Amino acid sequence: MARASEQSSTYEQFLDHVRQLHYVQDANGVLQWDQQVMMPDAGTPARAKQSSAVSTLHHDLLTDERLGEWLDELDEADLGDEQRAVVREVRRDHERAVRVPADLVERISEASSNALPVWKEAKAEDDFSAYAETLEELVDLRREYAEAIDPDRDPYEVLFEEYEPYLGIDTAEDVLTRLRDELVPLIDDIADSDVSLADPFEGTYDDDTQHGLVEEALDVLGYDWDRGRLDTAPHPFSTGTQFDARVTTRFKPDEPLDAVGSTIHEFGHATYTLGLPQEQYGTPLGSNRDLSVHESQSRFWENHVGRSLPFWEFFAGTANDHLGTDATPRAFYEAANEVYDDNLIRVEADELTYHMHIILRFEIERDLIRGDLDVEEVPQVWNDKMEEYLGIRPDTDAEGCLQDIHWTNGAFGYFPTYTLGSVLAAQLNHHVRQDIADFDEQVRAGEFGEIHDWLTDHVHRHGARYTTDDLIQEATGESFTADHFLDYADEKYRALYDC
Amino acid sequence: MARASEQSSTYEQFLDHVRQLHYVQDANGVLQWDQQVMMPDAGTPARAKQSSAVSTLHHDLLTDERLGEWLDELDEADLGDEQRAVVREVRRDHERAVRVPADLVERISEASSNALPVWKEAKAEDDFSAYAETLEELVDLRREYAEAIDPDRDPYEVLFEEYEPYLGIDTAEDVLTRLRDELVPLIDDIADSDVSLADPFEGTYDDDTQHGLVEEALDVLGYDWDRGRLDTAPHPFSTGTQFDARVTTRFKPDEPLDAVGSTIHEFGHATYTLGLPQEQYGTPLGSNRDLSVHESQSRFWENHVGRSLPFWEFFAGTANDHLGTDATPRAFYEAANEVYDDNLIRVEADELTYHMHIILRFEIERDLIRGDLDVEEVPQVWNDKMEEYLGIRPDTDAEGCLQDIHWTNGAFGYFPTYTLGSVLAAQLNHHVRQDIADFDEQVRAGEFGEIHDWLTDHVHRHGARYTTDDLIQEATGESFTADHFLDYADEKYRALYDC
Repeated sequence: MARASEQSSTYEQFLDHVRQLHYVQDANGVLQWDQQVMMPDAGTPARAKQSSAVSTLHHDLLTDERLGEWLDELDEADLGDEQRAVVREVRRDHERAVRVPADLVERISEASSNALPVWKEAKAEDDFSAYAETLEELVDLRREYAEAIDPDRDPYEVLFEEYEPYLGIDTAEDVLTRLRDELVPLIDDIADSDVSLADPFEGTYDDDTQHGLVEEALDVLGYDWDRGRLDTAPHPFSTGTQFDARVTTRFKPDEPLDAVGSTIHEFGHATYTLGLPQEQYGTPLGSNRDLSVHESQSRFWENHVGRSLPFWEFFAGTANDHLGTDATPRAFYEAANEVYDDNLIRVEADELTYHMHIILRFEIERDLIRGDLDVEEVPQVWNDKMEEYLGIRPDTDAEGCLQDIHWTNGAFGYFPTYTLGSVLAAQLNHHVRQDIADFDEQVRAGEFGEIHDWLTDHVHRHGARYTTDDLIQEATGESFTADHFLDYADEKYRALYDC
Repeated sequence: MARASEQSSTYEQFLDHVRQLHYVQDANGVLQWDQQVMMPDAGTPARAKQSSAVSTLHHDLLTDERLGEWLDELDEADLGDEQRAVVREVRRDHERAVRVPADLVERISEASSNALPVWKEAKAEDDFSAYAETLEELVDLRREYAEAIDPDRDPYEVLFEEYEPYLGIDTAEDVLTRLRDELVPLIDDIADSDVSLADPFEGTYDDDTQHGLVEEALDVLGYDWDRGRLDTAPHPFSTGTQFDARVTTRFKPDEPLDAVGSTIHEFGHATYTLGLPQEQYGTPLGSNRDLSVHESQSRFWENHVGRSLPFWEFFAGTANDHLGTDATPRAFYEAANEVYDDNLIRVEADELTYHMHIILRFEIERDLIRGDLDVEEVPQVWNDKMEEYLGIRPDTDAEGCLQDIHWTNGAFGYFPTYTLGSVLAAQLNHHVRQDIADFDEQVRAGEFGEIHDWLTDHVHRHGARYTTDDLIQEATGESFTADHFLDYADEKYRALYDC
């Protein structure tokens, strides 16, 4: 074991390198925010080169041999828990990066770039056959990628861990399967219900009106405008650091609640980022846990606050003022929670059926990557599953298996994190309500400070100190479970639809 | 001499490296644009780290030993003129970067950061003595910097070449001295003139009104909105690439022509950037020449178009519509060209007296760096020169030698490029009018295409292929000269002030 001063010096050098890595990655985040929010389209060729150059430098820093040497040295050193966590996180990223050959990274990046126009064209023409070969290439490349990282494990598991490293594919699969089995009957009952929920909206609402409304939603929820901003983007997202975490939204003329829900969703992401400790910026202790946890924060605010009756009892007046409507809190609540029995499109799905869209994609991509499904079978399997899970069948592949960009981007294993995040949100919701007994009263009074503090204290401030499963245990006192989500969904939607 | 295929392969590797360098630098440009235009203030600590990390990587690429080896190899190779120009430009940057020790770069960066609050405080308190030690340290560091680059040459010359490498300090000094000698009598005569120019503005004009006006100014001048955007910033600037060159402006409530002039100025910078060849993006052939040339493009449009009577004969109606005024073209023209005989502040100076502000700074910073002037003498010398050149004496150092941020930023040798750019703008103006005989008629008709094409053809499209002096020769058929500027100023202002 090295002497203390040597250890400290190694750790400091290591940490300085790690910080540079994070800073460079966040620099690229700024380039991407700008590209999606501010940049004129004509800037694309130059931005692609700038972004790729910065990514290459990031990759060089991550695969730097010195980093491997420091990690090995620190494995033998006497470190505290927090330092040990930093080493764990960096080792994981470093090892994945060094195991993948540079030329494979480049081939994947090139294949994804080339795939984009092919996918767009195939979707526009509703012609899956024009896309099949491209999809096959992407699947093959990602299997090669998974094999490079670990040839002895299920390639889908390896890819899933790219987005959610610490929940375990078995746990994830159990949760998704249980949701499939238990939500399908609930969705069937809702479809059979005679109840029709309120829809207080008529006509269209212009962008300025909707902007004013969502700005006020952010205001009342306590968004820290001094460390963020609100803009529009074709595909809303949130990005940034604990010093500057920004929100984007978009407006659909005839669905003002879409923007409200989407904005509150991104607010949830931003509050997670803003709750990370500032003094740890640039280290894993000042960085978010992975996608499931991030999504749990957005879904918590979107679903368990923004879609609740108490929230609308508080916010209906404001919404009416902006929209010129005269709807009751109950009407807003019902409109925000309608379950669509005829929707084929994931991004337009309601809170409940959304998960069937995800589970379907998860099953298909898992089988593709594992080699249990051929690319040509995808449209048929997709449509069969849609019929089985949601009772509807797409007429076209454009509305079916060609609708999402994820696979074209080379992302396999990403979809499940959407649902896992919602499941975790419900688990957190259960426990925050145990700790804050008058949760609903606080929401009804527009007081969100204590809820916010609970999440910061139980989740945000830890950064990536704990692995995901340990963080869930730490925050809720139990393992990751679908129980609370299923209870929540059952209770809420059976009441709403009287079924 | 290497074989052809080896040469080509060396050049290609070299060029790929050079492109990466440019891409990374432009990425940092995006971070800086965002910081000045979009970022909440609280983002500063994180942005500083991101920007510094990217700068460090840029510096590593620039000082890379392989780059030095390729340059040496290419010196022996059989290259075309354009390739030779690329090698020349990259060698210059590479050599300057490798000669300066990393720790000196860091000490300068740190000293500038530390100097900023000291300067702000000293300016706010009007207390030069609180800033003197800081200024001395900055001067010493920059002398050390110059000595590292070339111990055998005048340190001010070396620093000046950081911003304008190819005009020669002697030429620059001759031009500035000639301006000093010839403009002082003109300014005196104007001060003695009984003429008072029109001022058609009363009251204040809100930001939206001014924004509409400058947007339309950009429109009529032919700004390519598909490759740019207009925003506001505390200190207007333009930045970007030939794919995306953006303009910023600001609004003073009671001086709407300030925003018009400033916007047209930045438009000139942006048109230069947008005129660079796209296929050469990332190489010196697709990059701008240095600061004097850039400033010549902004000053050309600001002064020789935007401050001309024909422009206001075209634009007065539009301006009246936006501002709710009823002023004649002549009134706008006069208001845009008023010479202030009592202004102490550089950034508020008119077209003519501006240069006396610059010449004064040039003389002082030159003498400081050369060791011919002590820091403690700066306030006295500053005030004496103000009196000598402009007939006014600052009551406070806040309105005197503490007014600019440049020295605090560690920039010595930068100021002269402002005036050299204006001088070059007048030289280009003389020649473009020889080639476009009906220049004024075109401006009066709002037709700017041919003028724009002339500048693209004679200046922009060359990128940094030619050195500055060769570019001037190429574009105008003569060497850099103050003749045209002095003729222009004399003729215009003696007519305006009847003196």
